Parts: sequence; C-alpha cells; structure tokens
Amino acid sequence: MYHSVRNVQRFTSNLLALQRSIAIQNHRLAIGAILTSSRMASSESYRIEKDTFGELKVPSDKYYGAQTVRSTMNFKIGGATERMPIQVIKAFGILKRAAAEVNKDYGLDPKIADAIVQAADEVTAGKLDDHFPLVVWQTGSGTQTNMNVNEVISNRAIEIMGGKLGSKDPVHPNDHVNKSQSSNDTFPTAMHIAAAREVHEVLLPGLQTLHDALAAKAADFKDIIKIGRTHTQDAVPLSLGQEFGGYVQQVKYSIERVKAAMPRIYELAAGGTAVGTGLNTRIGFAEKVAAKVSALTGLPFVTAPNKFEALAAHDALVELSGALNTVACSMMKIANDVRFLGSGPRSGLGELILPENEPGSSIMPGKVNPTQCEAMTMVAAQVMGNHVAVTVGGSNGHFELNVFKPMMIKNVLNSARLLGDAAVSFCNNCVVGIEANTERINKLMNESLMLVTALNPHIGYDKAATIAKTAHKEGSTLKATAIKLGYLTEEQFDQWVKPQEMLGPK
Amino acid sequence: MYHSVRNVQRFTSNLLALQRSIAIQNHRLAIGAILTSSRMASSESYRIEKDTFGELKVPSDKYYGAQTVRSTMNFKIGGATERMPIQVIKAFGILKRAAAEVNKDYGLDPKIADAIVQAADEVTAGKLDDHFPLVVWQTGSGTQTNMNVNEVISNRAIEIMGGKLGSKDPVHPNDHVNKSQSSNDTFPTAMHIAAAREVHEVLLPGLQTLHDALAAKAADFKDIIKIGRTHTQDAVPLSLGQEFGGYVQQVKYSIERVKAAMPRIYELAAGGTAVGTGLNTRIGFAEKVAAKVSALTGLPFVTAPNKFEALAAHDALVELSGALNTVACSMMKIANDVRFLGSGPRSGLGELILPENEPGSSIMPGKVNPTQCEAMTMVAAQVMGNHVAVTVGGSNGHFELNVFKPMMIKNVLNSARLLGDAAVSFCNNCVVGIEANTERINKLMNESLMLVTALNPHIGYDKAATIAKTAHKEGSTLKATAIKLGYLTEEQFDQWVKPQEMLGPK
Amino acid sequence: MYHSVRNVQRFTSNLLALQRSIAIQNHRLAIGAILTSSRMASSESYRIEKDTFGELKVPSDKYYGAQTVRSTMNFKIGGATERMPIQVIKAFGILKRAAAEVNKDYGLDPKIADAIVQAADEVTAGKLDDHFPLVVWQTGSGTQTNMNVNEVISNRAIEIMGGKLGSKDPVHPNDHVNKSQSSNDTFPTAMHIAAAREVHEVLLPGLQTLHDALAAKAADFKDIIKIGRTHTQDAVPLSLGQEFGGYVQQVKYSIERVKAAMPRIYELAAGGTAVGTGLNTRIGFAEKVAAKVSALTGLPFVTAPNKFEALAAHDALVELSGALNTVACSMMKIANDVRFLGSGPRSGLGELILPENEPGSSIMPGKVNPTQCEAMTMVAAQVMGNHVAVTVGGSNGHFELNVFKPMMIKNVLNSARLLGDAAVSFCNNCVVGIEANTERINKLMNESLMLVTALNPHIGYDKAATIAKTAHKEGSTLKATAIKLGYLTEEQFDQWVKPQEMLGPK
Amino acid sequence: MYHSVRNVQRFTSNLLALQRSIAIQNHRLAIGAILTSSRMASSESYRIEKDTFGELKVPSDKYYGAQTVRSTMNFKIGGATERMPIQVIKAFGILKRAAAEVNKDYGLDPKIADAIVQAADEVTAGKLDDHFPLVVWQTGSGTQTNMNVNEVISNRAIEIMGGKLGSKDPVHPNDHVNKSQSSNDTFPTAMHIAAAREVHEVLLPGLQTLHDALAAKAADFKDIIKIGRTHTQDAVPLSLGQEFGGYVQQVKYSIERVKAAMPRIYELAAGGTAVGTGLNTRIGFAEKVAAKVSALTGLPFVTAPNKFEALAAHDALVELSGALNTVACSMMKIANDVRFLGSGPRSGLGELILPENEPGSSIMPGKVNPTQCEAMTMVAAQVMGNHVAVTVGGSNGHFELNVFKPMMIKNVLNSARLLGDAAVSFCNNCVVGIEANTERINKLMNESLMLVTALNPHIGYDKAATIAKTAHKEGSTLKATAIKLGYLTEEQFDQWVKPQEMLGPK
Repeated sequence: MYHSVRNVQRFTSNLLALQRSIAIQNHRLAIGAILTSSRMASSESYRIEKDTFGELKVPSDKYYGAQTVRSTMNFKIGGATERMPIQVIKAFGILKRAAAEVNKDYGLDPKIADAIVQAADEVTAGKLDDHFPLVVWQTGSGTQTNMNVNEVISNRAIEIMGGKLGSKDPVHPNDHVNKSQSSNDTFPTAMHIAAAREVHEVLLPGLQTLHDALAAKAADFKDIIKIGRTHTQDAVPLSLGQEFGGYVQQVKYSIERVKAAMPRIYELAAGGTAVGTGLNTRIGFAEKVAAKVSALTGLPFVTAPNKFEALAAHDALVELSGALNTVACSMMKIANDVRFLGSGPRSGLGELILPENEPGSSIMPGKVNPTQCEAMTMVAAQVMGNHVAVTVGGSNGHFELNVFKPMMIKNVLNSARLLGDAAVSFCNNCVVGIEANTERINKLMNESLMLVTALNPHIGYDKAATIAKTAHKEGSTLKATAIKLGYLTEEQFDQWVKPQEMLGPK
Repeated sequence: MYHSVRNVQRFTSNLLALQRSIAIQNHRLAIGAILTSSRMASSESYRIEKDTFGELKVPSDKYYGAQTVRSTMNFKIGGATERMPIQVIKAFGILKRAAAEVNKDYGLDPKIADAIVQAADEVTAGKLDDHFPLVVWQTGSGTQTNMNVNEVISNRAIEIMGGKLGSKDPVHPNDHVNKSQSSNDTFPTAMHIAAAREVHEVLLPGLQTLHDALAAKAADFKDIIKIGRTHTQDAVPLSLGQEFGGYVQQVKYSIERVKAAMPRIYELAAGGTAVGTGLNTRIGFAEKVAAKVSALTGLPFVTAPNKFEALAAHDALVELSGALNTVACSMMKIANDVRFLGSGPRSGLGELILPENEPGSSIMPGKVNPTQCEAMTMVAAQVMGNHVAVTVGGSNGHFELNVFKPMMIKNVLNSARLLGDAAVSFCNNCVVGIEANTERINKLMNESLMLVTALNPHIGYDKAATIAKTAHKEGSTLKATAIKLGYLTEEQFDQWVKPQEMLGPK
Repeated sequence: MYHSVRNVQRFTSNLLALQRSIAIQNHRLAIGAILTSSRMASSESYRIEKDTFGELKVPSDKYYGAQTVRSTMNFKIGGATERMPIQVIKAFGILKRAAAEVNKDYGLDPKIADAIVQAADEVTAGKLDDHFPLVVWQTGSGTQTNMNVNEVISNRAIEIMGGKLGSKDPVHPNDHVNKSQSSNDTFPTAMHIAAAREVHEVLLPGLQTLHDALAAKAADFKDIIKIGRTHTQDAVPLSLGQEFGGYVQQVKYSIERVKAAMPRIYELAAGGTAVGTGLNTRIGFAEKVAAKVSALTGLPFVTAPNKFEALAAHDALVELSGALNTVACSMMKIANDVRFLGSGPRSGLGELILPENEPGSSIMPGKVNPTQCEAMTMVAAQVMGNHVAVTVGGSNGHFELNVFKPMMIKNVLNSARLLGDAAVSFCNNCVVGIEANTERINKLMNESLMLVTALNPHIGYDKAATIAKTAHKEGSTLKATAIKLGYLTEEQFDQWVKPQEMLGPK
Repeated sequence: MYHSVRNVQRFTSNLLALQRSIAIQNHRLAIGAILTSSRMASSESYRIEKDTFGELKVPSDKYYGAQTVRSTMNFKIGGATERMPIQVIKAFGILKRAAAEVNKDYGLDPKIADAIVQAADEVTAGKLDDHFPLVVWQTGSGTQTNMNVNEVISNRAIEIMGGKLGSKDPVHPNDHVNKSQSSNDTFPTAMHIAAAREVHEVLLPGLQTLHDALAAKAADFKDIIKIGRTHTQDAVPLSLGQEFGGYVQQVKYSIERVKAAMPRIYELAAGGTAVGTGLNTRIGFAEKVAAKVSALTGLPFVTAPNKFEALAAHDALVELSGALNTVACSMMKIANDVRFLGSGPRSGLGELILPENEPGSSIMPGKVNPTQCEAMTMVAAQVMGNHVAVTVGGSNGHFELNVFKPMMIKNVLNSARLLGDAAVSFCNNCVVGIEANTERINKLMNESLMLVTALNPHIGYDKAATIAKTAHKEGSTLKATAIKLGYLTEEQFDQWVKPQEMLGPK
C-alpha cells in the first residue's frame, strides 16, 4: 500500500498536466476548428476500408485507405511537422506513372493504366498533398508510404473511372498500382528521384546564383589591395578580389562535388522488387521504368546495375550527404569571413559594408547585424548534423534491406533544400549588396607591419624582423622605424615596399 | 486495495496516451492552420505597419507587424516545415507574461500590464499559433522571433484595450512588451523554458512508460531460461527476465541522465538584457522573473548566476543534447535486440513473438515486420545527428552572444519530442505485447554447446573444450559426446549441467 | 588471356610500389636495427607457447604468450600508434591485483595470489609496458588484451616463483590470473577504472588549473570597461572582467558536468563474468573486488547494480563522452574569443595582448600567432569527432555484449587526455600571460555608437536611433551628433552617457 | 596459360600482403625508435641553437633545432602517441626535395640544393624518423612541423657538406630549405601528398583485395539458394552469390568514391606562400614543384588553380573524408551481415561458417567469435568519428588560413590507413575462409513461409496470405497447409513453388 502513495502522486501530477494540456488544446481546437472548418467538414463522415488486418474507418473525403489509417494509429511520433517530405510523395507520383505505362506494355488493361497515370500526375503536381498524412517515423522500409500512395492513386483512379472509393475495383492498390513492384524497390527509387530533383531544382541553382554573385564581387574588388590575415593575425597583403576569388573557387567546387555524387543517385532500384531478385516482375521492366522516369524528369536515370546493393544499402545517399557536408563547410567559411570582415561598425575589422536589412536590436538603436551570415552558418551546422544521422542510418542496414530509408531521405532532402535556399537568401540579401570600405581597408593596409616582408630580399630576414618588432613595440610606422634604425633610406623604403607589387610571384 | 495501484498505473498510462494523442492531433490542426493560413496569406486586405527601416504591408487578419513581415521577406529558407518550433513561441508567452507582471511591480501601467498578460496567455495557450510564421533560419539570436512575439502581443493587447492594430498605442512592442528585456536574454530564456517543458511533458513521461512496461516484462520472464549471446554467438545461459532487466536498467539510467542535465537548463538568462550586464533593467528583475516563470510552469527555474555565460554560450543545451544522445544509444540497443530476438518467423532467432500491427509487405503475403523497432532506431539515428548540429552550433559562439540559438533549440526540442513519442509508441505497440516463444527458447538452450562451461570445475577447461569442439564437429549433443568420450557418466552430466543453476554466482 | 594483361599491369604496378616500399624500408630497417639493437637482441631467440589453437613462437624476452602472438598475426591494423591505450593496461593491473586478493579470500593458494599481486603491481607501475603489443582493432570484447594481461602476469608470476616461462605452472593465465573472471566483465571494469583515473589525474586538474587562471584574470580585469560585441558587431559595454567571468563560469560548469557523469563510471562490471549472471564466480566476489579497486585507486568504485547492462551497453562511456563534448564546446568558445580579441597587432580587434611564445612565420618577420588557441580548438574538434565514434560504438551493442569496447575506451581516454593537457598548456602558455591593451580598449569603447543605448530613457528609442545612424553615416561622434541634432546639451550627454554606469541593472 | 592469371593474382596478393606486413613491422620499428629515443632524450650532451626568440639547448644527437625544441616545451599535449603522422613528415621530404630542385633552376647554389635533396630523401626514406618529435596539437598551420623539417634537413645537409650542426651555414633552414615557401603553402601541400600516397598505397589496394575476395565468393556461391531477409524477417529467396554480389558492388563503389575525391587532392598549394599570392616566390615555381612531386610519387599532382582556396579551406580533405565515411558505412554493413549470417553455432542464423582464428573466450571452452567483423566495425565507427572531427576543423577556417591543418590530416590519414588495413585483415582472416553451411541454408529455405509469394499469380494474394498465416499459426509447412485448405494439389505446389525460379524476373 505504501507505494500507492507514490503512484497517486504521479497520477495527480499527470492529471494536472493533462488538465493544463487539455485547457490549452481546447483553445487551439476552437481556433483550429474555425480555420480548418472547410476541410474538416468531412471529419464526421467515414467509409470503411480494409486491409489484411481488418476494417478501419477512413474519412470519406480522403483517398487513402486502411493501411494509411493504421499507420497513423501506430506511429504517433512527432506530429505533423514530421510527415514524410512532400518531395518523396511527388517522386512516387512520377514512379507510379512510369510503372503504369510500362505495365501497359506488359499487358495491364490500358483503361486502368491510363487512370493510374492521371492520378499519379495529380500526386506529382501536388494536387493531393492533403492525402499523405504519414510521418517519417514509421516502418523503416517506407512500406506504409508506398501503400499510402498506392491507396490514394487507386482510389483516385477508381473515382476517375466512376467506381466506388474503397472498393479496390476496378483499380487495386496492390495488384494494379503496385504491379511488378515492392515497397523495397519503389521506396529507394522514390528516394533517388526526390533527391535528384531537389538537387537540380533547388541546390545547384542556388549554388550557381551564389557563385555568380561572388564572382562578380571578386571582379569588382580586384584592384582593392588589403591586408591579409593568417591565424587571425595581420599578414602580407592580397587584393580583396583575390580574397573573394577563394570563395568563388569554394562554391565552384561545391557544385562539382555535388555533381560528382549524382551518378550513383541516378541509379534506380525499381525492378528489384522484394529482395533485389526482381521476383514477380518482368524482364526489361527495370530498364523501361528507369527510361520512363528519365524522360519524365529530364534527368539521366538508369536502372541500378545491382539491385541487391540498391535495396540493402544507401551508400549513394551517404555519399551525396557527404558532398552536402562539404558544401556546408565551404558555406560556413565564407559566411564567417563575411561577418568578421564586416564587423563593426567601429570596433570590428570593418573592411566590408554589409547590406542593412532589418533592425538588429530591440534595445540598441541603430544596430545592424550580419543576419544572413547567421542563417547560413546555422544551416551549415544543421547539414553537418543531418549528415551524421544519414551516416548512422546508412551504416545500419541488415541483410537484404536497409530500414532507415525514410529518415535518410528526410535528412538528405532537408540538407539540399536548406543549402540551396540559404545560398539564394545569402546571395540576394547580402552578397550582392556588399561594398568595400576602401578608406578603412587602405588605412589598415598602410599601417601593417607585415609589409616588412618585402624587405627580406634587400636587407635580410633578421633586420626586417628587427624593424617590425621595434615598430610594434614603439607604435610607430615601418618606414620611420627603418630609417631611424639606419637600415635604409626613405627612397629605398618607398621603392621596395609597394603593396601592389606583393600580390603575386615575380 | 493492492490492485488500486495497478489501476492507477493503467489509468495514468491511459491518460498519458490520451494526452499525447490530443497533442498530436492538435499539432496537426496547428499545421493545418498554417497551411491554410499560408494559402490565406493572399488575403487581399492589408494594413501598414512600420519599423525603423520603413513601412510594410501586413495582412489585416494578422497580429504581427513590420519586423515579422520583413523577416519573411529576407529569409525564404526551407518553407513552412522549418518554422520556429511552436514550443518556443509558447515559452515566450510564459516569459512575456512573467515579465509584464514583474514590470507592473516596477511601475508599468497596470492596464497595459494586464492586457499583455492576457495576450501572452493566449500565445501560451496556442490560440495565436498562426501569427508566428517565421522560420528557424533567421538571425541567430532569434531577435526576429522575439519581435514577432512582441508585435503579436502588443497588437493583441491593443485590441483588448480597444486600440488600433499597428498603432503601437497604448501598448508598444518594444517599450512595453519587451520592457527590461533584450532578444539576447529573452530568447535563451524561452529556449530553456521550452526545453524543460518538453522534457517534462513528453520525454520523461515517455521514458517512464517504457521503463515500466519493460520492468513488467522482466518480471513476467524471470523464470524463462535461455541461451545468452555474446559477439552474436552462443554463450552461457541467462533468464529472459535478466536480459530484459538490462534494458530496464538502461531506461532507468536514461531518465537519470536527462534529469542530471536539467539543473543548468533551469537557469534563466532573463535580466541579462543585451550583453549580460542587465543594462536598462532593474535590480531584482531577473530573480522575480525567474520566480514567476517557475510558478507558471511548476518547474524549478532560477535566475542564471552568470548572465554572460547564459547569452554567449549554450553549453547547457549541448549538455542536455548529450544526455539525449545517450538515451538514443540505449534505445538503439534495446530496439535492435528486440527485432533480432523476434526475427523469423522461421529463419531467425525467434525467441520473442512481437505484436503484429499491420501488413508488412505489399508483395509477400503474411509478412509481419518489427516496425516499431524500426521507427525507434530511426529516431535514435536522428537524435545522434541532431546532437552534432547542436554541438557545432554550441561551439561557435563569439564574444557576448552565441548566434546559433534557433537552430540549437530546434534540434533539442526535436530530439526530446521524438524520443518521448517513440518511447510511448514502441512501448504501447510493441513492448507490452511481446511474448516469449518458450518452445523455441527451450530448444535452443538445450542444444547449446556453451552449457559445457558448467563442466569446467569438474573435468577442467581442456576436456570441456574437447567435448564442445567434438560435439560441434559431429553435430551431436554435449551429453552424448561427453559420455562417448568417457569423461563422465550420464548421471554426472545431468547433475552438473543444470541451466537453472547457471544464472548467478555461488 | 585478354584480361591477364590487366592483371599483369596491376601486378607490375604493385611490384613497383613494393620495390619503392622495400627500398624505403630497408633504410628504416637499417637505422631501426641500430637504434633498437639492444632490445632486438632477443628477436632471434624464441620459446614455444600454446593455446587451444596450437603452438606459436614467442620472443623469449617477452612475458606474453600464444594468444597475444596470435592477435598480432591476425590484426595487422594501424600499426604501433594504434595499440591499446596504456591506461587500460594499467587499469587491468589494478583489477588483476584486486581479483587475486579476493580470490585468496575464497581459497586461492596464497603464494600464487601474492605472486600475481606483485606482477600486477608491476603492470600498473608501467614496468612491463613493452609486453603489451596489441592494437585497439582486435576483438571487440577486448578478450585478447585480457589474455595478454593474463599471460604477462602469469609468466611474470611464474618467474617470481622460480618457474619456467610458458609452462603455465604454477600460475595459469586462465585458472589463476583470470579466476572468477571473464573478458566480458574484466574489460569493461578496466575501461571504467582507466577512464576514472584519467579524468581524475589529467582532466579535472587541468580544468581546475585553467579555471583558476581565468578567475584571476577576471579579477584583474574587473575595472576595465570595454565595448561588448554581439553578432560580432559593436554592442553595449561590459567590463573585461565580466567577459572573462563568462569563461570562468563555462570552465566551472565543465568541471561540474564531468563530475556529474562519474557516478555511473564508478560502477564496475567485475563479477558478471561471461554474460552478466556471474556464472563460475562466488557470491560476494563482485562487491569485494569493487571495494579493493576503490581502495587501490582512492576512487569511489562500487559494483554495478545490473551486470547485464554493464556488459551489453556502455552508455556510461557515451554519457561521459557527452560531458567531454560539452567541455570541448566551452573550450572552443573561449579559445576563439581569446584569439579574436587578441587579433592584430594592428588590423585586428587588438584588445588583448597574448604572450609571444615562438616565431610565427618562416616568411613574415616578427609575426606572432595565437598558437595555444589553435591547439585548443583543434583538440576541441577532435573531441567532438571522438564523441561520434563513441556514440556509434555505444549504440551498436547486441544481446549480452557490446563489442566496440576497445574503440570506445580509446576515444574516451584520448578526449580526456587531450582536453586536460590542452587546458594546462593553454593556461600556462597563454592565459596567465594575457594582458589587456587598455589604450586600444578605451579608444574603441569611447568611439562606440552603441553607448547611445543609454539615452533611450531620456530622449526615447527613435531619437537615439537617429543619433546613432547619423553619427555612423557621417563618421562623427555620438556627442557631436546629438548636440548638432539639438536633442540634448553637452552637459546632458556627459551626464547620461557613462559607460561605467552601464554595467548592471539599476 | 589460363591459370597464369590466377597465379598472377595470387602472387600479387601475396606481394601486397608482404608489402603491408613490412610496412607494419616497419612502423613498429619506427615507434620503437621513438620510444627508445625519447628515453635517449636524456642524452646528456647538448648544443645551443637559436631562433628569433633566443637560444635553446638541443640534444647533440638530434638534427632538429630551436624551433622544434620550443614547440616541445610549449605543447605538452597528448604525449608520444599524438605525434605528427610520419606520413606527413615523409611527404615533406618529397616536397622539400622538389622545391630544392626547382630552386636550383632558379639560381640556388647547386651544392646546397644537392645536399638538401640528399637530406630530404633520407627524410622520405624514414631514416630520420626520430628527429620529428612534435605532436599534432601545435600551431594550427603546422608551422612548427615545417620548421622541424627545415631544421632537420638543414642540419643534415650541413653535416653532409661538412659544416657544423646548428650553424645554419652553409644551409639555412629558412633561406635555403624553405626558399620560395611558407608554412602556409608547404603544410597543405604535404597534407595532400601524404593523403594521396596513403590512399594509393594502403586504402585502394586494401579495398581491391577485399573486392576480389568477395567477388570470388560471390562466384563460388552463385548456385546456393537461400532465404532472403528484409526487416530482419524471413523474405523471398535469393542466391548466396547474389547476396555477396551486393557486397561486391558496395566495395566496387567504395573504390570509385575514393577515386572520385582524388582530383582535388592532387591539387597542390605550393607556390602560394604566405596568403596565396605567391609573394617572394617566382613565376613558374608552383607549376614546376607540382610536376616534380608528380614525378617523384607517380601520382598526377598539379598546382592548385586557386591558391587562396588551397590555404584558407581544406574542403578537399573534408570531401575525401566524406568518401571514407561512405566506405565505412559499406564496411559496417558487410561486416554486420557476415557476423549475423555466421552467428551460432547452434542458436544463430548459422548460414555461414566463418574461419576460426583464435580462442574466443577465457571462460567458455570452444567458443569462436567473428573477431574480424568486430575489428572492422570498430574501424568503421572510428572513421565516422574522424569524419566529424575533419568536418568541424574544415568549417572553421578564417580569412587567409585554416588553422586546423594538423588535426585534419591526422584524421584523414588515420581513416585511410585503418580502412585499408582492416579491409585486408578482414579479407585474409575471414572472407577468404568463409564457407556456406548448405545444410542449414537448405533447411531454412525449405521451411520458409515466404515461398508462398510464388503462388500469387496462380491463386491470388489473399489465398496466399491465408496459407502463410495458417501455416505460421499451426507450425506446419506451406505445402501441407495449401493442400489441406484445398487451394491446390500437391503437384501444383511442386510445380509452382520452385525457389530456383524465384531468383529473377521472367
């Protein structure tokens, strides 16, 4: 009995939490209900669908079926922000269309095939987004999302053909929409389609935009000579154009790196079915589906040369994620440099003037911050984290199937999207507006003790060091110190120490 | 009375499930509202609001103002799924209410203070969720979200007081809602409040639920003796209860680890204002706000002993994330064991019978998969990745402010939520339904060559090894081999080799 | 035949590589032979030892036996730099001594026990380091290192007792040295002992040293008022002592975090034997061994409450590694700040003067770099990487045994050592010698536009912003601008804008 | 003639093994030398050397000078196991030789140049390994190691030319050995040379060896039909050859991935000097040095097209590390599969018989463990951790120089070496000896319920599911159940359910 006290305590505390939670949620439900009332109108009417586990109620205005509903019941993890990325759903639309067309070649009733094609196109077009409620945290093969797609397409195709939702007639989710397919090969196919499209539609254009803007700045800044910094300390000069040229090169290579990872992303698992053997599919199906997907997307997809690898491992996604991770490092470097070079306005390095986009402080009037750099570096950190998640998932496949598929693609898509979007945002709201603070740049460069390096060939390293150390100690200029020490004349100094001649080999 | 304990437990657990289920449904509604509202964003009527950068159009049905709109224009990164976690917004509601109450003590007009309190409560209650459109990928201080909150509360408070939206009169977002505050201290305060609440409302109850279910199974299974496995190879026996007891210990320590990280999360930065000095705030403000927040949440918040550390570093979140990372390792181990021990039905280890929750294959009839284990291991991988993102962000603060704040809290909240939800899902849909396949367990144990270990004290390690190796080579039993080799009699074997006496020291 | 060409090509290329490699190595062998000739003298004489797999030649001057030699043959991975950390070997010395003493209580021949104790002490004292050649990349249970220890101690004990090396008589490696033990419980025990000792002997003293030095600096600097920086941009002032106080707090919490992770490190697996049941050991053995180890080390070791968890999972090491990861974040922050605040000498922030420890450049005379900060930040990055390795290993245990043990302890020890050493190096060679460049600090602070914040309460946020923005645009001072704009008088400015009154709440 | 191919293969493989074995032995000798020399460090005779900071005692038997000694005093971090990887030192030998030869073209005294060449060759050959005592945890530019190399080569060249150690005459470490160079371009050059050599000498041959052995097994196993496993659960059959074929593909792609990362590793920074401008070097120097290095190594090195990027960022190493990370995932998958498929001997999956290499337990007689898999998976975890360290370092460069250089190259080299060595060890000690347990394989396959999938086209998914579920419930065979249910005849079953016809599309 004594420990019932503890349980009652816990119970009471839970009850209080619940009360608070319900109180809060009633408000939300109230407002939610208003906002979503048009879409929720359906919520009171249901139809019955069934799978091999039995019957379930499905909202009558939804195309999905029993397996989708079952998944929502079994995987209450994370809520709506954690749903399967819509890009995966759209990629499935492309795949299901391609498969239907190929199946027609192999004898599928053309009317059924055509209805599937139409429904699949609607999925791809985003018209049916509301019908895909499943979260990432489901079965690791993505089977439930494949079935969600099969159910939605079959019901929509049934509707197109004038049938009754949930009847599986005349279009069966498994027998027709999933014909010659298994979740085990369709999900990785959709992963690759989605990743390739995100890379081509968001990431690469974003990086190219940033590249071009940085290159334009490098050209603009080519004659501005400034102090270099190594170890964060004053070093010999370079041009601001050269400095930006380094960033240009990083972004150029970012693009190359991502592209270098794509060939293995273009390999599609479709045709491998359950374990990679292609059981219950047809000779030629794999190749034809890949060709169709390629035609539909304009991307060079091919059938994977080894389906066993394509189901059991997702090294291709780990590889792509590794490329994104490298891009993240480049972005972090560039954004950090920009914010430090633009630091100030008075107590920082102050060599760059960054665009002022918004008020920077709710307490400090007139403060402006390098917020685009901050968004970019946060994105970079996120991509590095995503990469570890992808790596852990990619390393933990067993036997004929890796079951970290939804998690892996979620992270790869997130990284590609964030980097692509952030590149554009950083470019448009920061890079294109960067100006050089030439007055400040000149002042710093002319005061620099590291110009002494130019004297090495004339008076030797040791005397040069003495000049620099003396000037540093006494807070005087190099020229004054050099003359005072009697190592050279004013004319010699002016002749030998010319920053503009220190920008390259001789 | 004794069974009231069990009833209370079951009731509590049901309540928790209900609570969570409502939370999820609610989240969906919230998201639905966002999606709807983003479609409504085209609402054709606007009002003009302004900040120090100028005027901007604001949708007339929104409470936010110019700075919020400006952020949506400058940070088009990631889209709606990337918005600031709603938990942070709600935490801000709590903080703004606390600050208003304390400001009233220090002279803020009670009418204004009361209106702020009411508006802030609505934020906390989730009534205003669709007025917070900003994404995580904004300024790294979270300033724009602080201003979003200030703007929404001020406009809502103006409305309550009968004023005109956007007039900043009689309730000014900076002068009144943000009084004695800066983004630099309020955002970290909201981070800590949000993290602590998520830990207490989702993570810890989830882990406790899982712990209790595993402990119940360990008790149920205490008399089932089975073969042990080390290096994935056959080893000496233990009871299935002992095996589950290891899992129980892991979850127990998971709870302890998370709790051990909380003291530094309970420290609030509020009162530090812009750089930690507390400029423009009042002596005592910090302590009073912490006390108010503590009262409002029921959690032991205190004011941070050093505000400079509390703004410039977020080691406390890195620490908490490290605890979550450890929990993820525990979850990965347990879920992996469960799926391997439950592998089969015929060609796996087959010692556990896992609940069958849904059809497992669209191509293989009758297939059932350990899908809850898969969701859990995917979550674990995600948490490990999130942890690296938090670590990278946490290590890159500079001077008086770490500017990876939104990214860091996003990942910590995500990890806590996913682990908590997955623990409950794994528990309810898998653990509670696990049964021991005693027939299979007995068969494997009795065939095991490792029982030979019990002979060491009687016939020595070398003879024991000979028996085991011979039996292995010949595919025969230990007993038959031992007798055939003449090392002992049948009676001796039966007397010495008793699995039930191999479960502990003597 | 056609592809023999390819093979011949490959063969030729391999041959060339081999030739080059042999050429290089002949030189090394020549010089190596000279340097090590005294130790290598033995290499020509061998004795024969055997294990259950057969006989093997063992160098006659080595105490190890057949299983150790076999491991060197089977695991040619990484070479000598990858050997098992010596701290693990020494921890084994402590454990084997403790076990021998307890075994004596349970009946082990006192002469044998005493010889084991003596030999084990020599292991702990580092006298036999040359006899532990095995690498980390062996069996994941560390069995081979346990056997290496058993072999060395048994042979050394045999020698002490006047027996013949390799005879296993009168001291048998398994029956006596390993009595009541298994690799599966001894290796994790040694892991915990080693980790705890490294933490107490290297890490915590190192952190304390750094803490104290930073605290002394914070005290020294308490009256130096300087500009604050948020978002890397100019912000309101704080004292340099306050800034350093933030670092002090981070190190203080670093120490607390590490200590908070120790209780679970103090739990020892000894007594669990093969799978955690304690088979073939004695009731009380576990507790007595833990007590002995505690007495020998002066650390509060106890027997693990659940041996199954202690063998199958190493969450305690993941947890400790998580604490080290947090420490790494703190160190990265502090070292980054120090190098940026000390950047210059003329074109950086220049507020701190860092000790000059060595020439900074082979090409730039007089250059001095913040090299201690660089070593520290590299260490921090390594610790973050090590932590991921530990996490991956910790998550991948199966059934009754985690088999990533050697890799995990290697990384934890490496992190603890590097952080501890780097803290001392950073402290002694940098922190204690840091001086404030007060002239520069004053100049920057007085020029700062952010002092305008002090005017908010007097003339309002908007006018204050106008002053700051105008002064920024015109490059003039706040005071001149404020007067010119007619917002206040010179006297008012001097009275209201006092940095020394901006360091705290009022 | 046909078998000459096999012979060549075997010969090649033996040579590789020999090569590696010598490399390892050699490493040990090198380390032995270091340990010996550190003991000799007490050598009681000294000479005085000086740098710009003053005079220091240097052991008279060492070639290094004052800057090296100073570094050992300032960076007591980690001890001897943490020294700069010897591969970096050897790469420096190659670079310094190349630079001396090119400098001769540009006017360096041929006698000095030749002496430098001879000394540099000795460095490359490993003859001077114990003259490089510095640890990784030094200045982040690696300046001290560059100076260590300069000092050793200059003193050794002085010796060759009959001069006095420490006199810097006639060969000056800066003016001659470091001529036209800076640490900032030489260290990254050495990083790339070292990485490329390790990849070509250790990693790629190791992966190729493993690839070939797996391919041979795949061919051997092509006719063995076995049950597939998805989600760790029974699935439709495939051949064991197909299963191994997936591994072959993973290793094949591993090789491709590493090669794909090399082009940017072949780019050398030499010629960029201090900040990338090439100040104080000569036009053409960069290209000529790259050509010399290429000739000396047989690898296609070129001069980096953008030296600013090559000094300030090490994205190329992050990229290569990303490739290694992907290889690690592949290795983890393969090794995990092998150990689970080989689990048993009686209570595991037992389809593979793994070679028995050593006693597996000190307590369980006759136990054999998959130790090579364990070493491999530990290596994989380490590589994943190393990758994060490289990523963090790579992301944190500032301005003209990344100062995480030594840490980054240490981790990349470690990953390449461990993966290469582990691939060979895993191959030679495990893969080549794997045998199929055909009896067990056949038994499991024939009992499998998933063969029911073959009935889908004949009796439909629903009836097939009923058969499978019934057989599962009743523990009977598919055939008996199918007949009992009256769905088909025995003849039909035998005709339709043929595993050998389930291995591909039709």
